[in-house]
Amino acid sequence: MTAAQRAHVRVRIDFDAGPSIGPGKVALLEHIDSSGSLSQAARDLGLSYRRAWNLLDDLNHAFSEPVVATVTGGARGGGARITPFGRKIVERYRKVEKLAEQAADRHFKALMAVRGATPEVRGKLRRPLARPLKGA
Amino acid sequence: MTAAQRAHVRVRIDFDAGPSIGPGKVALLEHIDSSGSLSQAARDLGLSYRRAWNLLDDLNHAFSEPVVATVTGGARGGGARITPFGRKIVERYRKVEKLAEQAADRHFKALMAVRGATPEVRGKLRRPLARPLKGA
Repeated sequence: MTAAQRAHVRVRIDFDAGPSIGPGKVALLEHIDSSGSLSQAARDLGLSYRRAWNLLDDLNHAFSEPVVATVTGGARGGGARITPFGRKIVERYRKVEKLAEQAADRHFKALMAVRGATPEVRGKLRRPLARPLKGA
Repeated sequence: MTAAQRAHVRVRIDFDAGPSIGPGKVALLEHIDSSGSLSQAARDLGLSYRRAWNLLDDLNHAFSEPVVATVTGGARGGGARITPFGRKIVERYRKVEKLAEQAADRHFKALMAVRGATPEVRGKLRRPLARPLKGA
């Protein structure tokens, strides 16, 4: 293991009242923000339109304010726009994620530093599991 | 939303080199620790023995030291025991999780506090999504 070894953290936040936010919904909001279109965001993420719409509907149920609003008319013929409230949700989620990542880096660095043995040596160290655990 | 509203966070940590730790593997280690048996831990968690064994094998590949060792003989006829290294992994994971949860509580409190409108009012606020977004 090199010093460049880093932890990547995925965080899912569930609230008592039912709503939840994870990497999928947050990525959807970010793609709506950049494309101004739910269809385009769905395509970007390889989701069906229905799936994307449902994720968005979940989010709009989760909070007291809408995270995305539809826009009608205009040069581009309408679309979906993230609201300032929705943008705040994204920013705070990314903040929590970053803090968790820093904590993971900090707390696992010492444990991961033990790594670096060759695969052969690691094979030896792992021997206990090479025995069948059946019935253990 | 009441003041008792809290965030529950699930964290998955992926390391550059491939290993990953999430709620499932950590719960497995904790159940092995309390039962001294992989079969029992699998039953507790509603996993097949094969699935539990594979999760454990992943973990023993992930780090340079084994997280669980088999014990043969003795009054209970052997079993699986978490190693001190494995216990350290669990403790640090729970620490990272707790930090993420505190951060989520802190960062979302203000946003969630907006909640508390009646379902009727929330229905109104959500109106933008009630319109079909098809083609947006």
